[in-house]
Amino acid sequence: MKILEERIEKDGRILGTNVLKVDSFLNHQVDPDLMMQLGEEFYRRFKDQNITKILTVESSGIAPAVAAGLQFHVPVVFARKHKSLTLKDNLYTSTVYSYTKQTSNEIAISHRFLNDNDRVLVIDDFLANGQAVEGLMDIINQAGATLCGVGIVIEKSFQKGRQLLDERGVHVESLARIKAFEDGKIVFGPDEYEQNH
Amino acid sequence: MKILEERIEKDGRILGTNVLKVDSFLNHQVDPDLMMQLGEEFYRRFKDQNITKILTVESSGIAPAVAAGLQFHVPVVFARKHKSLTLKDNLYTSTVYSYTKQTSNEIAISHRFLNDNDRVLVIDDFLANGQAVEGLMDIINQAGATLCGVGIVIEKSFQKGRQLLDERGVHVESLARIKAFEDGKIVFGPDEYEQNH
Repeated sequence: MKILEERIEKDGRILGTNVLKVDSFLNHQVDPDLMMQLGEEFYRRFKDQNITKILTVESSGIAPAVAAGLQFHVPVVFARKHKSLTLKDNLYTSTVYSYTKQTSNEIAISHRFLNDNDRVLVIDDFLANGQAVEGLMDIINQAGATLCGVGIVIEKSFQKGRQLLDERGVHVESLARIKAFEDGKIVFGPDEYEQNH
Repeated sequence: MKILEERIEKDGRILGTNVLKVDSFLNHQVDPDLMMQLGEEFYRRFKDQNITKILTVESSGIAPAVAAGLQFHVPVVFARKHKSLTLKDNLYTSTVYSYTKQTSNEIAISHRFLNDNDRVLVIDDFLANGQAVEGLMDIINQAGATLCGVGIVIEKSFQKGRQLLDERGVHVESLARIKAFEDGKIVFGPDEYEQNH
């Protein structure tokens, strides 16, 4: 998605070898008009899937997920993160390891908000190692719901998450795909969707 | 705001003496179309204030804040919560006590996203004891920015937050004001804005 790639080039900051900070428009400060454009693009790519629910994880996924929800007109559920849950009554839970923070969190969604009639679109801000998406897929599985696709704002294709989802046959659409960081520059990968539509 | 009060009556659940659960449309599952209507209402009430930035706290504030941002076309910054911060470089921080969880969190906003030219609208999902808003006001003060108003989705008027903000002369607009829970029923208070417009 051209305007997103341009925004990343303009405002993203590369830290170390594989961290991209986009906290000026995506996950600390949020540009709502850009979110709206991302939501429209997710809709374009998944509108034929009869989505009934959008799932994400707090906090950074909420803004793009709600923007997508505005297009699909379906509820958005954000999984809550906890260090560890003692009371798991009426909750689907899964454990998510964060490579960045080197900690595990449990994520939880109430039984009331996901069931076996749901056709789910997962939305998240980043796809790196794929741990958060895997946790949500685990929860979708527990609920007997159907995963229809995964919509990602920024994919770091050089980490293992994308490959892992491809191997499982998941329909992934990433609005920006980063192939590498080279000499402080961002190298974007191909966007098959734009090439084919 | 009539449609919000009706939604609270329909889907809200009263727990114990003073807890209202609205996790089916506001803070776990989110109704994006309702968020949009809330955003439009916040815009109606604060549009003359030359707002340059919307501030909220993760996670539950993000959806209504981004919806408001879509109307004002200004950036939305959500303060990050931490148990305790060791590294405070380039961050405004404040300590927020949660009566519900009986724990203290530090909230933090990067220096890069708030400065003394900003005219700030604070948005949050609930106003109860006012701790989160006070923490944001502390941060706004540290940045030398101007607080132009506070927009709340649901105010529990019987707790001390509203009075505290009124005493400080803060312009507060709460889209639903709950005066009391009586016999398992919600008693709404007056909406001065709707009475005067």
